[in-house]
Amino acid sequence: MKRIINFSAGPATLPLTVLQQVQEELLDWRGSGMSVMEMSHRDKEFMSIAAEAEKDLREVAGIPANYKVLFMQGGATAQFSLIPLNLLRGKAGADYVLTGDWGKKAAKECGKYGKANVAASSESEKFTKVPDRASWKLDPDAAYVHITTNETIHGVQFQDTPDTGGVPLVADMSSDILSRPIDISKFGLIYGGAQKNIGPAGVTIVIVRDDLIGQAAAMTPGVFDYKAVADNESMLNTPACFSWYVSGLVFKWIKNEGGLAAIGARNQRKSSLLYDYIDAQDFYKNPVAKKDRSWMNVPFTLPNPELDAEFLKGAKAASLSGLKGHRAVGGMRASLYNAMTEAGVATLVDYMKEFVRTRG
Amino acid sequence: MKRIINFSAGPATLPLTVLQQVQEELLDWRGSGMSVMEMSHRDKEFMSIAAEAEKDLREVAGIPANYKVLFMQGGATAQFSLIPLNLLRGKAGADYVLTGDWGKKAAKECGKYGKANVAASSESEKFTKVPDRASWKLDPDAAYVHITTNETIHGVQFQDTPDTGGVPLVADMSSDILSRPIDISKFGLIYGGAQKNIGPAGVTIVIVRDDLIGQAAAMTPGVFDYKAVADNESMLNTPACFSWYVSGLVFKWIKNEGGLAAIGARNQRKSSLLYDYIDAQDFYKNPVAKKDRSWMNVPFTLPNPELDAEFLKGAKAASLSGLKGHRAVGGMRASLYNAMTEAGVATLVDYMKEFVRTRG
Repeated sequence: MKRIINFSAGPATLPLTVLQQVQEELLDWRGSGMSVMEMSHRDKEFMSIAAEAEKDLREVAGIPANYKVLFMQGGATAQFSLIPLNLLRGKAGADYVLTGDWGKKAAKECGKYGKANVAASSESEKFTKVPDRASWKLDPDAAYVHITTNETIHGVQFQDTPDTGGVPLVADMSSDILSRPIDISKFGLIYGGAQKNIGPAGVTIVIVRDDLIGQAAAMTPGVFDYKAVADNESMLNTPACFSWYVSGLVFKWIKNEGGLAAIGARNQRKSSLLYDYIDAQDFYKNPVAKKDRSWMNVPFTLPNPELDAEFLKGAKAASLSGLKGHRAVGGMRASLYNAMTEAGVATLVDYMKEFVRTRG
Repeated sequence: MKRIINFSAGPATLPLTVLQQVQEELLDWRGSGMSVMEMSHRDKEFMSIAAEAEKDLREVAGIPANYKVLFMQGGATAQFSLIPLNLLRGKAGADYVLTGDWGKKAAKECGKYGKANVAASSESEKFTKVPDRASWKLDPDAAYVHITTNETIHGVQFQDTPDTGGVPLVADMSSDILSRPIDISKFGLIYGGAQKNIGPAGVTIVIVRDDLIGQAAAMTPGVFDYKAVADNESMLNTPACFSWYVSGLVFKWIKNEGGLAAIGARNQRKSSLLYDYIDAQDFYKNPVAKKDRSWMNVPFTLPNPELDAEFLKGAKAASLSGLKGHRAVGGMRASLYNAMTEAGVATLVDYMKEFVRTRG
C-alpha cells in the first residue's frame, strides 16, 4: 500500500486509523451483516451511529444544550442560500464581513433573499488580512453578521471571535471547524462542509442556537428548513449516512488525540514550522498579515511562476501532493488540516529547502 | 464475515463484489496513495472517476446526447422543491399524478412556488393502483406533469411510460431507476436518490433534457440551478465524491451483469416468485392491483398484525432483514432492488412458507 502526504485543500487527508477502521468494517459493520452503506437510516444500527456521532461532536466541540446540531447535505455553498432563507426572519438584510472569495459568494447569494450589506472587506488589499474590527460598519438591525473564519483560498483566518453585540454571529467554518477550541456560545450559527477537518464530502454540519430557528421564509425548500431538520434529528429524508458515519469516527479520533486543545496546539506547531521557515528566507513568500495568517491553509509563492511546475514535479516525486495553489492566488498552497501530521509538514519544509538549494 | 439478506427499502443492499472492491482500494485508490475520500474533486484522479461514472451511466441507461446528467446532493426530497424552482419557467403551475405518499409530498412542495394541480390520484383507494390514464385531468399549459414511477411505501409502479403530449414528463424514479430498460426520450426530467438501486445515500441523479434548463426562478439557490450545475459538470461546489465513486462501480456492475435488459428480466423473475406465491395462498395478502404491482417493493400483510412481531423475529433468525412494513401501510415489505439476488428472494419465500406451516 502506498500513502502520499496529502496537502489538498479539500477533500483532504483523513486519519489513517480512521480509514483502516472503515476498511475493516466495510462489509459487515460490527456483526450486523451489512455495510454502513446498506443500512436503512431508520434501523437501530444506523440510528446508534448517528446519535453517537452527535454526542461525540457535542463533547469535542463543547456545544451548549441550547444549540441544535444538524447533519445536512449540499455543502457550505448550499448554506449560503439556506442561511438567509432561515435566518433573515423578516428582517431586511444581514451584514457580511469579507475576507476572501467564499465570503463574497455567501454575500452574493444572500442578495437573492434580502440586502447583503458589506460591513467590511479586505478585497482592495487582495484579501491578505482581516479588516480591523473598528472599521466594520455594522447595522444594528441586521438579521446576523456573517464571517468566514478561515478563507481557504487566501489563507486568512480570524484568530479571535469578534463581538457583534446583540446581532447573531454566523460563521462559515468549513476549513477550520474543529481545528482548535472555540467558544460556541459566542455564535448564533456555525456551519461547515465535512471534507476538510471532519470526513468525506457529503455532510454539512450546522450548529445553530435554538431561538434562531422556526422562522424560515415561506419559499424555503421544506427539506432545508432548519426547524424541520432539527425536529426530525436530521432525518427528514435520507441523510448522507456513510459520510455521517465516517465523521463520527473522526470525532472519536479527535477525542483519542486529546481533544481540541491538543489538536489546536499541534495545528499551531504545524503552521509555525512552515511560516517560520518562510519568514526566515527570501525565496518563498506568504502575503498575509502575520496576525491573520491561517493555521489551516498556507499559500506561498516562488520568485517567479515559471518555477511552479518544477516545484510541483519534485514534490510529487517526494510523495508530496495537493500543493498547487488556487488559480485566484497562484503559487502554492499547503493545507494543514487536523489529519496532516507534524512529520508531513517537516517533510514539506525539507523539500522546500532542498528545492532552494538545487534550483534557487 | 457475516452477511444478511437485506430487504431494506433504502438505503439498501449493494452488490457484494462492489463492496469488496471499495474495501480493497479504500486506503490507496489504484496506486494514487489516497483514499477516494481524500481526493480533491479537482484532482485528475477524481475527475476521471466522475467522468467514467457518467459515461457508464449514459451507456447503461441509454441517455440521449441532449440530456444532461447531474450528480447533486439533498436527495429526491430536495428535488421536490428544486424541480418547480427550475422548471416552472414562468408558468403558473404543474400537474401531479399521485400514486402514493412521495408524489403527495412532491406536490405539496411545488405549491410553495406555483400551483400544484392534482391531475389524478388513487388516494381514495389507499394508493393501491395507478389511476387510469383516461381519467387524468391534465392542463395543457402545465409546466410539466410529475409522476412517481415507483411508490416505495405502497408498492405501486407504472408499468408503462404515460404519454403527456407536448408537456414534459417529470419522474421521481428514486426506487426504480436503472431497474429495467426505459426510453429516456419520453421524459423531460428523471431524478432519483442513489440509495436504492445505485449506491450510498448522498448522491441524487438528475437526468434532464437540455432545453428545459436555464430558466430557474430568481429565488433558486445558486448551487441548485440545474443550468449552473450542468455547466460546471456537477462540481459547482464539492460533490458527494465517495457516493459518486461507489455509484460508478455499481454502473460497471450493471454492465457486467448484462445491462438493464438482464437486470430487468431478473427483477421481473424475483418479483414474480414472491407475487406468485402470495397469490397462490390465503395467509399473506398484497393489496395492489396486479397490473400496477411494483417489481421493487412488495408490501404484504399477515392475517392479523399480532403475528407481525413473531414473523419478524423468525425472519431475523433466518438472516432475513429489513422486512418491517412502512407504518403508513403496516405489515411487511420486501424490497427487491437490483442487488437482491434470486436466491435471496427464494429464501424469503421458503421462510414465509415455513412460517405458515408452523404458525398459520
